[in-house]
Amino acid sequence: MKFDFQNPTRLVFGAGALKKLGAEVARHGKRALLVLGGGSVKRNGTFDKAVASLTAAGVEVVEMAGVEPNPRLATVVRGAELARHEACDVVVGLGGGSTMDAAKVMAATVFYEGDPWDMIAHGQAQQRLPTRALPIVTVPTLAATGSEMNSGAVITNERTTEKSYVIAGCLYPRVAVVDPELTVTVPPDHTAYGVADLLTHVTEGYFNGVEGTPLQDRFAEGTLLTALEWGPRAVAHGQDLEARAQVQWASVVALNGWVQVGVNAPFPVHMIEHVLSAHHDVAHGAGLAVVNPAWMRFAARARPAKFVQFAQRVFGLEARGPEDLDAALAGIDRFQAFLESIGCPTRLSGLKIGGELIDRYARDTLRIASDKEGRLPGRPPMSEADIVSTLRSAA
Amino acid sequence: MKFDFQNPTRLVFGAGALKKLGAEVARHGKRALLVLGGGSVKRNGTFDKAVASLTAAGVEVVEMAGVEPNPRLATVVRGAELARHEACDVVVGLGGGSTMDAAKVMAATVFYEGDPWDMIAHGQAQQRLPTRALPIVTVPTLAATGSEMNSGAVITNERTTEKSYVIAGCLYPRVAVVDPELTVTVPPDHTAYGVADLLTHVTEGYFNGVEGTPLQDRFAEGTLLTALEWGPRAVAHGQDLEARAQVQWASVVALNGWVQVGVNAPFPVHMIEHVLSAHHDVAHGAGLAVVNPAWMRFAARARPAKFVQFAQRVFGLEARGPEDLDAALAGIDRFQAFLESIGCPTRLSGLKIGGELIDRYARDTLRIASDKEGRLPGRPPMSEADIVSTLRSAA
Repeated sequence: MKFDFQNPTRLVFGAGALKKLGAEVARHGKRALLVLGGGSVKRNGTFDKAVASLTAAGVEVVEMAGVEPNPRLATVVRGAELARHEACDVVVGLGGGSTMDAAKVMAATVFYEGDPWDMIAHGQAQQRLPTRALPIVTVPTLAATGSEMNSGAVITNERTTEKSYVIAGCLYPRVAVVDPELTVTVPPDHTAYGVADLLTHVTEGYFNGVEGTPLQDRFAEGTLLTALEWGPRAVAHGQDLEARAQVQWASVVALNGWVQVGVNAPFPVHMIEHVLSAHHDVAHGAGLAVVNPAWMRFAARARPAKFVQFAQRVFGLEARGPEDLDAALAGIDRFQAFLESIGCPTRLSGLKIGGELIDRYARDTLRIASDKEGRLPGRPPMSEADIVSTLRSAA
Repeated sequence: MKFDFQNPTRLVFGAGALKKLGAEVARHGKRALLVLGGGSVKRNGTFDKAVASLTAAGVEVVEMAGVEPNPRLATVVRGAELARHEACDVVVGLGGGSTMDAAKVMAATVFYEGDPWDMIAHGQAQQRLPTRALPIVTVPTLAATGSEMNSGAVITNERTTEKSYVIAGCLYPRVAVVDPELTVTVPPDHTAYGVADLLTHVTEGYFNGVEGTPLQDRFAEGTLLTALEWGPRAVAHGQDLEARAQVQWASVVALNGWVQVGVNAPFPVHMIEHVLSAHHDVAHGAGLAVVNPAWMRFAARARPAKFVQFAQRVFGLEARGPEDLDAALAGIDRFQAFLESIGCPTRLSGLKIGGELIDRYARDTLRIASDKEGRLPGRPPMSEADIVSTLRSAA
């Protein structure tokens, strides 16, 4: 176990935290590019509260609305141009993962020379990571991506139908203002997709990481157990602020690095899902709920032991031994049943995706991310045929 | 659950990490005050390796040796004066918790106006926190205190026989270089005391924190389980680098804030133990091994439910219900038996401390730390009589 780790983001967590936004942003800038999504923050009053807090702290606001789900490169470029033109000195992302991710990449694009798509990992092209960004402040309105407290972002290139990620130190937000009150209006379906998203962040690291990380395993299992306990309450009782807080805290921890530190895991389920949502604009969490159980069954056959541990520690199942494939598969069945119980699709048909393009999805996945042997990194690596058969199993 | 959290320390972890010390320090300064303890790092070669790495990176070294266990204020003042006189621009603490804590407070004392004891929490005196420090780099040679990646330090005032703590943002190390190879020469007894120390960091937050932190509970239990699994291997097989690494990683996480975030817990066991070690210079971890089980039995009677959860989740015990005091006490028995199994004392007599001064220890504890009603903060708060009876139960 060897690693370097640093997460410098300041986290301001709790109901009512939005009131502190202005004071937090004012420590980093005087003129904020306020990045927004499709308008729900205006309808539910969150936008007005954010602007009031910023204005009271003497921060001027330049509005950059209209970040779409699966945010597009053109939107990022538009936001960066606005930030430059308006001489913004800080970027605030107020919304879900798409909005925060777009805000983060806008902040870096302001200083980036050349095509900002070069920041994003994609295929054999040389990736040029950004090294500088305007100060970033994140305010999530959804418990899902964990983008508020990490250095990653996912962007879609609408010209090439590629969706992929960038991870760079300059993308760590200076501050994440995480206020569970902002999530009480999220409808049950998107609440459930957020739970699926956070669960998948944890399982990707857990199943694809290196050997010999027992403490990280415990943290992963603890995060899963917390989400399994509180997720259904947040879905069923949207106004339950306690449930919202616990789910949101789990979503922060699921991808702020505490669970994954040193595990050095690729995220194969994400890479496959990104292709689905690049083609079909499905909600990321819903796509993950479909791909993840199918991927787990593929991976469990190669490496049952970790899935037996998962079945035992997360679902309390018994096993005949450390390699008991039946127990491993029973744990996966329980995981899938949980996702279905909160209203997630677990079949491509539930995403209104047919089987016609499965070969294309597999090729596109490998175009974005493949190892030297042309396989998708993961434990085990996946050939094109593996991806096809995994997706077919979820058709 | 409301909190602000930020831990900016960069963590460089893994066998061989010491080789990176020079490059890491050089990012923060050119002339390092190298703070050392009693000499073991010279005998075992760690000092030479550290100096070689620093020198190769162009960092000049000013040696400040001789930090004693339970480091004294006079030593801190001496180190700060040396740093000023030698115009050091970075402070490196190479050693156990005492050495790192002393190094951290030296780095702040360089800029502090007035008596540095005013930084330290003690009784009714107004505490003036430090706001500035030289850049700090920590290199632990013992898996125990977690000081390498947090903003706390514990100092003893030898004139008043008071031992207490300071927690301040400027005390976060810029970098913690954590190399488990440095711990393989730690003898079994001190290895065991380190395990007791890290376990106690976790149990203090777990049992004294606010309600409604289920994810933090899981992280705490996961850290305990990891230390229970790997601690005995590190004690029995000092050269087992894998066991050393797992124990050291657990000791970092036990007090870097990840487990305690938002729990807002006082540390009553530590406050009582500090009095014992101020009077008798016992090893901190050994003192904690004595006080903690006795304190747990006191606290369990007031609040069995959390101890039942501990018994169930950490030791796999069954309970007749959520308030089953017998199960709670059985869990504490198991915890104490574990400490004894790795060679920790769990009685005052094992520390060679008689019962004569128990009343004095209780008064001294409350002199350092008491709430408005004159009780030691904790769940539940302790009166002087509570502290006396708890210590007598461990006589």
